[in-house]
Amino acid sequence: MESCRVHGGLAPLPVGGGVFLRPPIAAFRRNLRHGACAMAVGGRIAWDDVLELSSDGGRVSDLAGYFERVRCCNRGSENKDEFLPFLVEEQTVGYIHPSFVDQLKSFSDVFILKPGNDKGSRNATFITLHPLLRSSEERTMAVGDVIKAMGSRIPGIRNELYPVSSSFGQPAFFSLERAAAPYFGIKAYGVHMNGYVEKEDKRYLWIAKRSNNKPTYPGMLDHLVAGGLPHGISCKENIIKECQEEAGIPESISRRAVPVGAVSYVDIDGPRYKRDVLFCYDIRLPQEFVPKNEDGEVESFKLVPVEKVASIIRQGEFFKPNCALVIIDFLFRHGYVCPDDAGYLELLQLLRSGASS
Amino acid sequence: MESCRVHGGLAPLPVGGGVFLRPPIAAFRRNLRHGACAMAVGGRIAWDDVLELSSDGGRVSDLAGYFERVRCCNRGSENKDEFLPFLVEEQTVGYIHPSFVDQLKSFSDVFILKPGNDKGSRNATFITLHPLLRSSEERTMAVGDVIKAMGSRIPGIRNELYPVSSSFGQPAFFSLERAAAPYFGIKAYGVHMNGYVEKEDKRYLWIAKRSNNKPTYPGMLDHLVAGGLPHGISCKENIIKECQEEAGIPESISRRAVPVGAVSYVDIDGPRYKRDVLFCYDIRLPQEFVPKNEDGEVESFKLVPVEKVASIIRQGEFFKPNCALVIIDFLFRHGYVCPDDAGYLELLQLLRSGASS
Repeated sequence: MESCRVHGGLAPLPVGGGVFLRPPIAAFRRNLRHGACAMAVGGRIAWDDVLELSSDGGRVSDLAGYFERVRCCNRGSENKDEFLPFLVEEQTVGYIHPSFVDQLKSFSDVFILKPGNDKGSRNATFITLHPLLRSSEERTMAVGDVIKAMGSRIPGIRNELYPVSSSFGQPAFFSLERAAAPYFGIKAYGVHMNGYVEKEDKRYLWIAKRSNNKPTYPGMLDHLVAGGLPHGISCKENIIKECQEEAGIPESISRRAVPVGAVSYVDIDGPRYKRDVLFCYDIRLPQEFVPKNEDGEVESFKLVPVEKVASIIRQGEFFKPNCALVIIDFLFRHGYVCPDDAGYLELLQLLRSGASS
Repeated sequence: MESCRVHGGLAPLPVGGGVFLRPPIAAFRRNLRHGACAMAVGGRIAWDDVLELSSDGGRVSDLAGYFERVRCCNRGSENKDEFLPFLVEEQTVGYIHPSFVDQLKSFSDVFILKPGNDKGSRNATFITLHPLLRSSEERTMAVGDVIKAMGSRIPGIRNELYPVSSSFGQPAFFSLERAAAPYFGIKAYGVHMNGYVEKEDKRYLWIAKRSNNKPTYPGMLDHLVAGGLPHGISCKENIIKECQEEAGIPESISRRAVPVGAVSYVDIDGPRYKRDVLFCYDIRLPQEFVPKNEDGEVESFKLVPVEKVASIIRQGEFFKPNCALVIIDFLFRHGYVCPDDAGYLELLQLLRSGASS
């Protein structure tokens, strides 16, 4: 029985058909087959490639491609136990790799290595801040100075502070440069918005293509609007701000954005322990609205049928990886994935593999 | 900043206002205060009571009432370790309480108690089926005979078979009477549908009130359509069947039902270990549609503004407990709960506290 929207929109497609693939696409497919996550390989993706690709690409009821996207956001769980907990006021706020701990040792007026009480267990030793750093401001400044002093060892400094707290919305113990968060295993929060349009009973998603000049994931596909959540701004304020900057959506429209849940992941890559929680928003846009990037971070936008977006996601790492998660969540909430598809419940659970606070 | 739909619909309300409460409502509120889950107390709920109640009832941004509803579906986790695993073909398919194991011992041609290999660990002993019961049909018949022989020790026999498998959609090892599932700790699956109507920018949910003759949760509030998922029927077929029986929704409308995810819980109550997964559906109904129950299980229906439904859920156990979970999931997906509300991420995670396969 055809039970999902996507079944109505597209006939089931053969797996691995012999369609001609341009070289970059073929490379993506190879990476996919070899189980690699083709991250940060962008810049070579062309709209024509991905839109052409969508005529190929896996049965709609085969969730394997979606599982692959989730896997690419949740790497390295087998290395979890190598990391030392990072405690502030006796609460675990992060996890730090021993190689990074070694670098922090020379800043002994800021970071202290402490043996834990339970010597028998793993992670008996932990890192904490020097007890003389008492206020949030003192800690923010001292840690900021360390990060500055580390120079290129923490690449991509943004000069954007993220709050460090026990759980979302709780008072911050201190604030930390955004680019440094994964080195300290600090939870980071963001807002991601799917902008859709409905025309004649068909639904389309506005998809962005990142500028080739972006330091991260250049040229890859992206949401209409997404951004990290800096210190001192609410989710709703942030989504309205990002709507204006990234897609030229005026507040008269963006205030209609609907919060619809969250996805989360833990990505361990070398010394980096990335714990991200993304608050998801949907916005239904007027048919006549055309997004316009105002901050130079987007090369172009296209309005793509949701079934085609789903197919692109299933076939490879064309989207910035965490955007794929948020779009898969959209596909679940809007009936493009079906309970009768094998793996439905497992995939749904994996969308929230990370922090839940 | 007003960030959620519900904020737009209702002004924030004072907590614990001194509104006059009719006796049954007052009892519910007391139960709530005392942390009890007022289950199966229905039959005394009147529409007027709950609709009147909704003008009281907790700030919309205070998620405490929702947490309470989730807790009432997930009781007894502290007793988990008392149960013995139930294995079929070396896979754990359930959990059985020692008191029920004692009763099964007299059926030694069907159930066998086996000491596990690892004697040091808890639950080293497990229950399995007699090795002579090889086919699914033989097992179904033999277990069915045991259940019949147990008579009133398993109340509420439905003569409805549930499949027993390692995960949803996998071939069934055998099938089991629905009412017996909690005694064997078997995962059970259901479909629950929120039926909503949109009128002049306002959204309403169709709410059912269960018949006072229902053996479970008589007189309590319920979804427009919900049902267990018996052996051999797909989710989509089941929702279409239940739409017709429970609300008189013809297939021309019900085939538009959209699968939107799932919620799950584990409720341990005495010897019963209930592991339920509910596949959630939304359906947008035409304004002129009026549901009509055809199987005698519903006393009446009412169209209630979503903000009012949310308020009723926050204030007490008026809904059949698992329906509250599905409605809270609806509130998340449609923006009636906000990321900036304290506990948002925790509550979102708790909606899927149970099985994910």
